Amino acid sequence: MKHITLSCGSGGLESYKLIDEVIYEILGGLILDMHEDAGVYEGKGRMATSTDSYVISPLVFPGGDIGKLCVCGSSNDVAMRGAKPLYMCLGLILEEGLDVSLLKQILYSIKQEARKGGLRIISGDTKVVPKGAVDKIFINTTAFGEVVSDWRVGRIQEGDDIILSAPIGAHGAVIFCERNEIALQSDLQSDCAQLYPLIESVHNCEIHTMRDATRGGLSAVLNEWCRAAKVEISINEESVPILEQVSGVCEILGLEALSLANEGVCVMALPASESKEVLAKLRAHELGRHACIIGRVSKRVQNIESARVILCNQWGGKRYMEYPQGELLPRIC
Amino acid sequence: MKHITLSCGSGGLESYKLIDEVIYEILGGLILDMHEDAGVYEGKGRMATSTDSYVISPLVFPGGDIGKLCVCGSSNDVAMRGAKPLYMCLGLILEEGLDVSLLKQILYSIKQEARKGGLRIISGDTKVVPKGAVDKIFINTTAFGEVVSDWRVGRIQEGDDIILSAPIGAHGAVIFCERNEIALQSDLQSDCAQLYPLIESVHNCEIHTMRDATRGGLSAVLNEWCRAAKVEISINEESVPILEQVSGVCEILGLEALSLANEGVCVMALPASESKEVLAKLRAHELGRHACIIGRVSKRVQNIESARVILCNQWGGKRYMEYPQGELLPRIC
Repeated sequence: MKHITLSCGSGGLESYKLIDEVIYEILGGLILDMHEDAGVYEGKGRMATSTDSYVISPLVFPGGDIGKLCVCGSSNDVAMRGAKPLYMCLGLILEEGLDVSLLKQILYSIKQEARKGGLRIISGDTKVVPKGAVDKIFINTTAFGEVVSDWRVGRIQEGDDIILSAPIGAHGAVIFCERNEIALQSDLQSDCAQLYPLIESVHNCEIHTMRDATRGGLSAVLNEWCRAAKVEISINEESVPILEQVSGVCEILGLEALSLANEGVCVMALPASESKEVLAKLRAHELGRHACIIGRVSKRVQNIESARVILCNQWGGKRYMEYPQGELLPRIC
Repeated sequence: MKHITLSCGSGGLESYKLIDEVIYEILGGLILDMHEDAGVYEGKGRMATSTDSYVISPLVFPGGDIGKLCVCGSSNDVAMRGAKPLYMCLGLILEEGLDVSLLKQILYSIKQEARKGGLRIISGDTKVVPKGAVDKIFINTTAFGEVVSDWRVGRIQEGDDIILSAPIGAHGAVIFCERNEIALQSDLQSDCAQLYPLIESVHNCEIHTMRDATRGGLSAVLNEWCRAAKVEISINEESVPILEQVSGVCEILGLEALSLANEGVCVMALPASESKEVLAKLRAHELGRHACIIGRVSKRVQNIESARVILCNQWGGKRYMEYPQGELLPRIC
């Protein structure tokens, strides 16, 4: 089988062959319940679940591909709710004519990343649509995990420190350059990574909420938090780490690093008394070695209109960190 | 908001507005955890989970639309594993320019069907892709439920009866006619429906396995069962109920009703001693009033090549019910 044909999605013999000879061949060892439409697992108390569709273009990029991305992205959303990611569902939408070798490459990435995170596949689905009805391949993943800590936006408190785990914007900058065929003068790679291994060690600290800064970047997360928790957040502009290469791309192209997507960077709100210990633990991990405090929850507010993010610079200047607007970068994840 | 723009998928202000003013406005009451990337629920023992992407064309058809279909389809896959469907995740992939009124119509169908089935939405995702990267709207749903009965293909036994819950082929025939602009001379509608209410009453009977006959129809399910359980299944051709309108469409167009998709029809394998009671219970429900025994598991076989479905007619003739092959009907679900 060299190319995906429409008959591979018909539910008949060719579907069986695609699933058996390509998908099971690569992912078989990770699948809990073969030959069933639904998989069964043991639910242990509170479970966190998150679903995401991945429509990224290009499919392969410096630092990853859609396969790695779909595992990391969904695993991270579950990890951010204080859960240990355990299972995932995998829905593939394939375009007629898709190169089977590209599909295999993506499946191998899924395998590698799922193995790394100890994730088992609990249910899968494969659809094939006629040429032109989808651009090559879209993937939906739904991840689930056991809740260990109660992290949620409702727990944000006035006085909380805001910690950022790593420099921002690499994923967005890389995809932007790839998409526009801008040659990077550097080895800049997407930050795409699973965050659970980084944050596993801070589960015994007091943390109020955590979020990975994906679409819309740091600005989107902080603005969402302000609105949902009715607070004002103040950020020290200079303390937000941005890689030199990312700043360079932003300057040239007029992008705002604060709104660029990340796929392996998280933000957390926590009591200031916990910050020192949490920072030490994060910095002990490869992914968190540049973790730092970037600001704090400055006050409670009465209404959503006052729930803003304030960006403060070292000369005492203040401006709003706006909720990102407009077409930032379609198909970033 | 009249049309979906790319900025609705950027993760910024317009995304927030689409989610808040359109999606939460309609589905809000069903959502467990607003303003979080992952939802948390209480897992009670064994949970069955199934994921499916819906790419059907046309989006609206006699008897349903993609919204009703995505709830029924995923709920059914979970119900077939002996579970009570409880939760679902919802991933929307929208094409730039999509009519917001069409999106709302689909969301209302999701709401109505989820309410009917008592399903809560636990996590959602919305992506927008540029015009041409997807055909209007694709939806992924992942459903999960508490396992009540241990129904799985591995439990099929020699001597089991095969029961079919309803006449076959209506969904496939309707979509085929719609797609090819063939005017139906009748009020034929898709059979799209949630099956849990039908089968709830048979949970206290002994059933070995159950499956809804979707893509690839009855032929695909029975052939999969033969291969997975290494058995031969014999079906009495005349006992398989097919609506007159479906037979008519099949005759004119040269389709095989046995391979046509269904979205509210299930097949079960169970000890013959249970059949009478199960049939009575099924027939007491609107969706199962034409339920009948269509054949039996005739013998165990040693290898997959002998694991076939035999179609027997009233004159003693026998032929194989083949695994469906070729392009049956793309985008049927």
